[in-house]
Amino acid sequence: MHHGDKTRPGETELDAALPQGASLQIIGTIRTPFATRDDCPKRGDPENGPLCQLQIDPRLAPALEGIDALEALDVVYWLHAARRDLLTQSRGGARRGTFSLRSPLRPNPIGLSPVRLLRREGTVLYVRRLDCLDGTPLLDIKPLRCQWSPAGDT
Amino acid sequence: MHHGDKTRPGETELDAALPQGASLQIIGTIRTPFATRDDCPKRGDPENGPLCQLQIDPRLAPALEGIDALEALDVVYWLHAARRDLLTQSRGGARRGTFSLRSPLRPNPIGLSPVRLLRREGTVLYVRRLDCLDGTPLLDIKPLRCQWSPAGDT
Repeated sequence: MHHGDKTRPGETELDAALPQGASLQIIGTIRTPFATRDDCPKRGDPENGPLCQLQIDPRLAPALEGIDALEALDVVYWLHAARRDLLTQSRGGARRGTFSLRSPLRPNPIGLSPVRLLRREGTVLYVRRLDCLDGTPLLDIKPLRCQWSPAGDT
Repeated sequence: MHHGDKTRPGETELDAALPQGASLQIIGTIRTPFATRDDCPKRGDPENGPLCQLQIDPRLAPALEGIDALEALDVVYWLHAARRDLLTQSRGGARRGTFSLRSPLRPNPIGLSPVRLLRREGTVLYVRRLDCLDGTPLLDIKPLRCQWSPAGDT
């Protein structure tokens, strides 16, 4: 739905309209050294983790303008190899609801990772702290915002 | 893809298999006092923001087990009223790429908000800090994880 929004100064529209429904648009591909799920670490390391690439669809290049000024990003991706039908899972012998876990197995396997942005080369961003499979479909990139994090953060 | 995963002790499968492709499953509805986009604040307030509801599909009730123990959640939702075709946008007269902004207007209008969990009543979670439209489709709920937030956080 557009709600009659008009394009304003400074805005650029994509030539070919993307789908407007609740379908996902793959905006690129994540390249990591992790070929299998057993290779993936439990949590990415922002300091010593491997350098990974966010390879953005070149048609979306204008959407990267100004991103070089950021040092940290939220990366959103689609965990394409994950089961989507588990409502509870086991942790340390205890039964836990899927929404009380950050497991990749969930109804919408959307992965969220804060990453450190090291550099950009064209439509490729070099980042650290990812823990996902090589070839993971990329959904979104946003400036990191983690300003409210209570002590009870899990 | 299941990669041959078997159900393990403590795991519960949903009776009716959810779609396994890259399509989204709406897991519930967000209720806020914000009826129009002009009503929505720029950023939610975890202390004084209105009490909002996450109304989860009752078929997913087991996935909420253990969530009461958490005081903060990451909420993931679909910004159904947002344009998806803007590659650049204007901020303070400057042209900025969409991926360098947290604007709701983006190729995949996936909203992410950390919220404070106040209480649960059955499959309804009462939370503060949301800034989205009433009726926004809910995609996922995860325990909040914001452990790495550098000074350059925007």
